[in-house]
Amino acid sequence: MGPRSARGGLRPVVAPPPTVGVDLGGTKIYAVALADGEVVATAKRSTPRTGGPSAVLERVAEAVERLGLDGPPHRIGIGGPGPSRAGRTTLGPAPNLAGWDDAVDLAPPLRERFGEDLVVVVDNDVNAAARAEAALGAGAGAPDLLTVFVGTGVGGGLVLDGRVRTGAHGMAGEIGHLLVVPDGEPCGCGGRGHVEAYAGRAGMERIARRRHDAGEPTALVDLAGEGRMRSSIWAEALASGDAMAAELVESAASHVGTALAQVALVVDVGLVAVGGGLAERLGASFLGAVEQRVHDLLPWDSDLHVVPTRLGDPAGAIGAALLAAEQP
Amino acid sequence: MGPRSARGGLRPVVAPPPTVGVDLGGTKIYAVALADGEVVATAKRSTPRTGGPSAVLERVAEAVERLGLDGPPHRIGIGGPGPSRAGRTTLGPAPNLAGWDDAVDLAPPLRERFGEDLVVVVDNDVNAAARAEAALGAGAGAPDLLTVFVGTGVGGGLVLDGRVRTGAHGMAGEIGHLLVVPDGEPCGCGGRGHVEAYAGRAGMERIARRRHDAGEPTALVDLAGEGRMRSSIWAEALASGDAMAAELVESAASHVGTALAQVALVVDVGLVAVGGGLAERLGASFLGAVEQRVHDLLPWDSDLHVVPTRLGDPAGAIGAALLAAEQP
Repeated sequence: MGPRSARGGLRPVVAPPPTVGVDLGGTKIYAVALADGEVVATAKRSTPRTGGPSAVLERVAEAVERLGLDGPPHRIGIGGPGPSRAGRTTLGPAPNLAGWDDAVDLAPPLRERFGEDLVVVVDNDVNAAARAEAALGAGAGAPDLLTVFVGTGVGGGLVLDGRVRTGAHGMAGEIGHLLVVPDGEPCGCGGRGHVEAYAGRAGMERIARRRHDAGEPTALVDLAGEGRMRSSIWAEALASGDAMAAELVESAASHVGTALAQVALVVDVGLVAVGGGLAERLGASFLGAVEQRVHDLLPWDSDLHVVPTRLGDPAGAIGAALLAAEQP
Repeated sequence: MGPRSARGGLRPVVAPPPTVGVDLGGTKIYAVALADGEVVATAKRSTPRTGGPSAVLERVAEAVERLGLDGPPHRIGIGGPGPSRAGRTTLGPAPNLAGWDDAVDLAPPLRERFGEDLVVVVDNDVNAAARAEAALGAGAGAPDLLTVFVGTGVGGGLVLDGRVRTGAHGMAGEIGHLLVVPDGEPCGCGGRGHVEAYAGRAGMERIARRRHDAGEPTALVDLAGEGRMRSSIWAEALASGDAMAAELVESAASHVGTALAQVALVVDVGLVAVGGGLAERLGASFLGAVEQRVHDLLPWDSDLHVVPTRLGDPAGAIGAALLAAEQP
């Protein structure tokens, strides 16, 4: 970062100001300030459900202000739930953000708020989190890292030789849609037999409710009550010895392992970090089952390691800040 | 390439000498001389079946000499049937080369023959061919290319952002072992249900003979006689309307397409070149079926193109020469 010539005048030689990263999610906005690879401030706000992009951006600005920096930020990176084209300043369409139906350029409103020299850059949220895990989390020191998030769905981001791979359509790392069972369970994307249909919470719940409706006993449905089958409910059912929960969790780990073996055959990464609700809740037993499946499937003596993600919730915001810091 | 200081003295300023590339195969040795991205000479020799590495290396040297260069080469790249570690000077173990049971350093014997300043570099043959197709063949001008060879087996090499991806174990691009049918047909690697088991000629022949032995009619077995079911035999059976041949070829194309869709989900390449016996023999109908399957499977509107390889037999030698030219 050079001196900001537009402001002119003599300025004392000081450390560069922190770079700001924002993870713009469907329910919350998470902001961090990053200096020398360390998070020096964090702030959280809820994502407004009405008012569209302008209301959301106002809340983003509030989160940035709550970081309490000395003066306005010079660089902001935003990770959001849209298609990935690292280096843009536009986000959307974003179905997970209320009223965000088109691509919106985030640079003009943020520059109006924080200064016309503000560097703004937008990234896909999963790729932002993968960048952060590779640089400062589970992959620190390794050349490559695949980061997989097992949540409602299954998403992934791929870092090769230290750079996020986006690919021809910004779809690289979309391992949730790898085919693991030909003509298998329906997937949210309209396809069938994808790993997300077996290892994402939405798919697992769909299978459990269907089997329960067909008369198979399970505590999962009662435990969920009127709500969704959250990770805690799966953990509770497992702890109580529920057979269907055990079978579906084992199946989820096995299918994630199958998907990771395919990734290993395509790009031969040596390290995979797995995070997200179910993986974090079940911990080593889940990751161990995933890793075992990878080793069973690969046609060479594999030392691929499956480890937990390390940065937790702030990963997306940290990765967005790292991208902003890299901008020219 | 700088002046070769070890030889000393004043030398006229001339164009750099051609770089030599050698494809060291189980049956033949193919040498090319490459200057400014053009093949300026080629030579072929058969691979000796006795005498081990020293006999093979003697034949490699003969092939290089038959290129008829003005003086000894300065740089030689060798593509061979062994594990890939681009930048090494060792090749092996190589089960396809008679008596080549260990890693052999090719630099000392080649330097003894051609001069102690000779730059020697070894690469995996499939990756060498993929490098050549990406730089000078089907992928010229594109950032990424997956090259797939459908022959006795199914091999592949992956070029991302202009560089061959090798990965943690030199196994990147090994798409022949992608899983397409869980617990399916046995694969030569010991696994089951890999694309190679359905689309490699060895696997296709195994299936055809088993079904024939079980009483199902097919012209394939008679056409093959005492020999293997070569690509020409599959083409002949197809032309005669043989139902089993049609079904197995369609299945092969479909499974290759499934594998390519998985590659697209992992790294999102926009272009795939397919070569090798069956693909070359059947041409557009085979590649069209592959491409259709990819588009059917991908959860986004895909414009991934499946095209034929362009360089043919010399690809491996050209790619080895390109690698040699890049060495410091």
